[in-house]
Formats: sequence, structure tokens, C-alpha cells
Amino acid sequence: MTGAVVLVSGGMDSATTVYEAIDRGYEPHFLHTSYGQETADSEFDCAKSLADEVDAPEFIHVETDHLATLGASSLTDDEVAVQDADRDSDEVPDSYVPFRNANLLSMAVSAAEARGCAAVFIGAHSEDFSGYPDCRPAFFEAFQSAVDRGTKPETTVEIVAPFADDSKTDIARRGLDLGVPFEQTWCCYRSEKPACGTCEACAYRLEAFQRLGERDPIAYETRPSYADGDETHF
Amino acid sequence: MTGAVVLVSGGMDSATTVYEAIDRGYEPHFLHTSYGQETADSEFDCAKSLADEVDAPEFIHVETDHLATLGASSLTDDEVAVQDADRDSDEVPDSYVPFRNANLLSMAVSAAEARGCAAVFIGAHSEDFSGYPDCRPAFFEAFQSAVDRGTKPETTVEIVAPFADDSKTDIARRGLDLGVPFEQTWCCYRSEKPACGTCEACAYRLEAFQRLGERDPIAYETRPSYADGDETHF
Repeated sequence: MTGAVVLVSGGMDSATTVYEAIDRGYEPHFLHTSYGQETADSEFDCAKSLADEVDAPEFIHVETDHLATLGASSLTDDEVAVQDADRDSDEVPDSYVPFRNANLLSMAVSAAEARGCAAVFIGAHSEDFSGYPDCRPAFFEAFQSAVDRGTKPETTVEIVAPFADDSKTDIARRGLDLGVPFEQTWCCYRSEKPACGTCEACAYRLEAFQRLGERDPIAYETRPSYADGDETHF
Repeated sequence: MTGAVVLVSGGMDSATTVYEAIDRGYEPHFLHTSYGQETADSEFDCAKSLADEVDAPEFIHVETDHLATLGASSLTDDEVAVQDADRDSDEVPDSYVPFRNANLLSMAVSAAEARGCAAVFIGAHSEDFSGYPDCRPAFFEAFQSAVDRGTKPETTVEIVAPFADDSKTDIARRGLDLGVPFEQTWCCYRSEKPACGTCEACAYRLEAFQRLGERDPIAYETRPSYADGDETHF
């Protein structure tokens, strides 16, 4: 069976990515990173239980606190309050860790090349676009070129972002199809349990389920209505 | 004055790169990484004294032990003996950390974007070619494209590998011109002091100085003759 390194934060996007990789015939080597973010422990627990769930051949956990050292961000700096979601803003949100996905993908490619894995999976999606430049298909294409040129001649590692052109709603739909245990996944930038329901991460996740007419199985402090109701036509 | 993040290992290539960056009008923000390699402490001391020497505005030190976790290498694995230099081999040497430069450059770009620095300098050179795929100009070009697409719209960070087309001898010559304090730089993969004189790192360094007819100011256990004598024509 062919191996793939899958970047698994413990949230719904990466959980669905794990199941997508399995569905495509890969054995998922979990790569979970902690980078000093407030929600590190909760995300680790979710990622680990998911690895047990799918009987992953490997769970690689790397501490990447240097990402906090290298760049300021509300995810890593206690002094910056987490903003509520602003759906109308074109600004890069304050949760942005500069060039984060390049760091994560570089680690994943190192692990893949060392293990002879044929692919690296990452769960970025199209609604990250406006905020996170390193979630765009154009970025992944350029990074693929760097991988092709920067690894050994005999190495072939494909960068797979299966949901790069999809919405979060598409991911929720695909995850429900694949039987992803969403109740074991993590949400909420604010590190609250139950999840706050109002930060950017919670807002997008709740909206995705609401658009599908499904109830998100995790607990929320509040469940504001985010979906416009027009897209529950599946 | 414009800032540049410079990847500084503490060896002669990166030391010369620091002076090159200064010569081009940049203030060098030092980024020094320790990744579990045997020579970590010695390299740190050399990098730090160099930062003091040039009055660097910043010395960023990040522990990147995860590179050892992610990939096996003789630089990070005590059980793999360091090979003597094999100048005739086309094989990727066992000191290779898979996709290492992509990891280092990603960190440097994160730091540069967070600080508003305009460039990232790395001291790779042409004689790394046969062994290290991620030292080639083609790799740096592809990585530049990933940087352009993966950072904020208003961010411009140029990847500068000033010696990518040069030999180690060229670097030694340029360093002597720029007044690089080579006596404060580190060499030797074997973590010996004096340097062994026979590992790949020592062999290339000694050869570079011998070709210029100059004496390398650091101490060596032995000083084999590596230069063919035909190229001391400068």
C-alpha cells in the first residue's frame, strides 16, 4: 500500500482529508504540529484519536514553536485578542501566521521523502482564499515545482490539496459521505469548550453544517445562524 | 536601511553571505537554526560572534529538532558514521537532510514577512549541486515563485543565493575581499576541534583556500592536499 503524509491539525478539514486520502488508496502517516497556539492540547487529542480510529501506521508529532518566534499572530500571541469573524473584509485576518503552509508542507515533504511516501495531503479549501495567500491553488502549484526540483532525482512526492477548489460546505458534505467522525474533531480559535460559536473558525464550521441542514455534533456555547438558507438544496 | 533575513549556520559560506548582504546595503537579521546536528553548539558560538562582529540588529535562534524527527541523516543520527569525502560520487551524500533548504527558507520568509524585510539570503553554492538538490538555482527560482504566491499581496521578499553559481573557491576569494573573519567560522561535520581535515566539509573548505594559495586560519588535525595546484592563477 502506498503511503501519504497527511497534515492533521485535528479540525474538520484535515479529518476529512485523512478519509479522502484513505479513499484514494493511501495509508495515512499523520503529521501533527503544535506551534504554540492556544488550542494545542485539544487539537492534539483530536488528531490522536483520529489516528487511532483509522489505525494510522504512524503519528508524527513535531513541536514547531519557532513559528511563534518567527512571526506575530493572534494564534500565538496572548496579547492579541481573537477577532470575531468579519465576512466582508478583504484583509488578511490576524490569525495569519506568515507563510505557515510553506513551513508545514516543507516538513511534510521532508517526512515523505525520508519514508518513501508518494504524496502529501493538506486540507486547505477555497474559502481560506481571501485571508490566507498560502492556501491558494496557485501557491500549491508553485510549491509542487519547488518539491520536484528540490528533492532527490528518484523522489516523487505529489502535493495534494483535494479541497483547494471546494467550499467548507463541500468538505462537510464529503466528510459526511465518507463517515468522518466529526464529533472527534476540533474547532474554535478561542480555546473554549464548548466551542464559542462566534470566532472565525466556529462561524465557518457552523455555516457549513447549517447549509447542509445537518447538525454539527460538537457542543457550542451559542449557535448563531450563519447560513442564508438558500443553499440547502442538496 | 533595508533589512534582510540571513540564514547563518556559522560556517564560511554563510559568514561570507552576511558580508555580501551588508555590501549590498542590507541590515542582516541573523537566523540561526539548530536541528539536532552534532556540531550545534560550535556552530551557534560562531554565528553569535559573527553577529556581534557586524553589530546585527537581531539574532534569531530557533530549535528545529523536528528536522531530525522527520528525516534520517548522518548529521542528526549518532548511529550513522560520517563518511569521508568522495569527490567522484554522483550519489546524494549521507549528510543530506531531505528538503532541508525548503524548511530553512520557509522559516526565513516567515521571519522576513513578519518584520517587513525585503530579502532572504542563503549561502548555497554550485559545488553543493551534485549532492543537494535543494541548493540548485532551479530550486531557488521555483521557491521564489512559491514565496510570491504564498505571502500577502503587499509583501515582497526576494530569495537571494548570491553564490548559487559560484564555487567554494569563489566564496573564499569573495570573503577575503570583504574581510570576513574566517577564523571565527566553523567547519567539520565530525564535531572535532581542531577540525578533522578529512570529512566532506573540511575537504571542500581546505581545497578552496589551497586553490587561492591562502592558509585557512582555523586549526585542522591534518591538512591533506586537495587542490590540484592548477587553479591558483588569480
